[in-house]
Amino acid sequence: MSLGEFDLIRRFFQREHPQPGVTVGIGDDCAALMPTPGQQWLVSSDMLVEGRHFLSTVAPERLGHKALAVNLSDLAACGATPRGFTLALALPRADAAWLQRFAAGLFALADEHGIQLVGGDTTAGPLNICITVFGEAAPGQALLRSGARAGDDLYVSGQVGDARLALEVFRGTVSLAGEDFERVRRAMETPQPRVALGQALRGVATSAIDISDGLIGDLGHVLRRSGAGATLEAESLPRSVLMAAQPLTLQRLCTLSGGDDYELLFTAASSARAAIEAAAARAATPVTRIGRIDAEPGLRLIDAQGQAVPATFESFDHFKTAHG
Amino acid sequence: MSLGEFDLIRRFFQREHPQPGVTVGIGDDCAALMPTPGQQWLVSSDMLVEGRHFLSTVAPERLGHKALAVNLSDLAACGATPRGFTLALALPRADAAWLQRFAAGLFALADEHGIQLVGGDTTAGPLNICITVFGEAAPGQALLRSGARAGDDLYVSGQVGDARLALEVFRGTVSLAGEDFERVRRAMETPQPRVALGQALRGVATSAIDISDGLIGDLGHVLRRSGAGATLEAESLPRSVLMAAQPLTLQRLCTLSGGDDYELLFTAASSARAAIEAAAARAATPVTRIGRIDAEPGLRLIDAQGQAVPATFESFDHFKTAHG
Repeated sequence: MSLGEFDLIRRFFQREHPQPGVTVGIGDDCAALMPTPGQQWLVSSDMLVEGRHFLSTVAPERLGHKALAVNLSDLAACGATPRGFTLALALPRADAAWLQRFAAGLFALADEHGIQLVGGDTTAGPLNICITVFGEAAPGQALLRSGARAGDDLYVSGQVGDARLALEVFRGTVSLAGEDFERVRRAMETPQPRVALGQALRGVATSAIDISDGLIGDLGHVLRRSGAGATLEAESLPRSVLMAAQPLTLQRLCTLSGGDDYELLFTAASSARAAIEAAAARAATPVTRIGRIDAEPGLRLIDAQGQAVPATFESFDHFKTAHG
Repeated sequence: MSLGEFDLIRRFFQREHPQPGVTVGIGDDCAALMPTPGQQWLVSSDMLVEGRHFLSTVAPERLGHKALAVNLSDLAACGATPRGFTLALALPRADAAWLQRFAAGLFALADEHGIQLVGGDTTAGPLNICITVFGEAAPGQALLRSGARAGDDLYVSGQVGDARLALEVFRGTVSLAGEDFERVRRAMETPQPRVALGQALRGVATSAIDISDGLIGDLGHVLRRSGAGATLEAESLPRSVLMAAQPLTLQRLCTLSGGDDYELLFTAASSARAAIEAAAARAATPVTRIGRIDAEPGLRLIDAQGQAVPATFESFDHFKTAHG
């Protein structure tokens, strides 16, 4: 079928009722939002490319979900309250069925977080999805990568590694079938951004980042920015029952340098353990203590016995290790 | 050459001195900006695809300029004061020379408008540039498409049509050489966003839009949103000496449905003619009165003698009439 650009936008992305605080939605040159007085405005932009950030086999609903989820995950890592987002979309063809399903997944997650699509762009071109999200936090309250201090505990939310396990199945290096495959595939295709946890950690965590490039790679950003090192207990990384049944080498690959987890990796003073537990309970999100921040630079991986774990410090880099 | 993603970002897009009001720049999960108290936040996002919004022959500096210019043009159309932007970039390869030149063009225009790149994303993929701009205006001051009223004058800034003339040269339907070709090529590749004019028109113009899809197509958006019609004097459209030397049919194609002009099309009460002249002078931007808004729906094209001009109302639609 063939639809004009403006019809496409109207039909699938323009909704009837703008939210409070949004005075002009899709359809004018700009969207206008009223910032909450006294709050900082937090912004993040992510671009998703087929074969790189998602596979051609992904269901459009899940792709719509994931495109927004990875952006909300950046707001979560800053402890921001989401306010809205723009969507720029390059499509190889105007496919109404695909767009309807993509929009359904996108809006389901947007509604869950009470945010609105305020504007964007649609063009023909190789499939590309660029979302920019806006959120708010009080000045000085946003969680940064740079705040980790020697002696801090190191935590991660949820479980890590299943998304990479799914990728390995798609790559043919691992065999999983039935509900096992579906479970890890959901982890890869429909990550849940830890927005509530991020907000609960404001004023409690000393630093935070979301795990998009793999735990070790993203921890590296925190350590570099904070001028610190860390000791990580490799066996303490929270993992699914399915992951725990895999060979240890595969477990370490997936949990340490998996990528696409979208869990929060964060630090907090060891005196704040009760506050962290309370924040996790408030956000209904499990968190696990997985190590500590050291004054000594570098990353030390240890096993349950405190012995050094030999590791290849592979970080996910889009120009080196492509998905798919 | 091969550079990692993070190196790329650092090397070309991270600058030393964040501007006042930007507390976290590129390198954290989000950028943080402090809105000016009492101001609305205006947002626009545009995606540029090779072969669609630019040709593969464009110099990287000019592409960097244009990618930001088309976004600033949306802020201009709203009368907003630019504050910052994010850049998401998909690149077929990590080409340092290309990136350096692209960044040079981008930052030259950013500096001209006193705004900073606050964040973004880089990935491998078919060349795609997605910029999201942020600006500010007092509540109720932003120029909208919906404010045109019967009896209003219709204006356009600068000159229209040269960008389309250049495209026709690239398509081989028109022959131009030497400095003539360079002049229209500059119009296509380095449009000047009318930011100062947009700001000067706040409180004076009743509606505004920037011409990206062709004057008639974009006027259609204003008329639809405003529930009005218009009479347009086809011969009154401001055009270059070069354009005026072309056959009349080509002139009308280029000026009426050219696309890529990035001039402002706006309306104002006829009682505001002196105020419009003053705004144009303040912004050092020529403006021309080209018609009027009617209560009767639809668009009437007339020539210098007031006779109806037969016209194909071709609008630029990225799914129908592709560049290149």
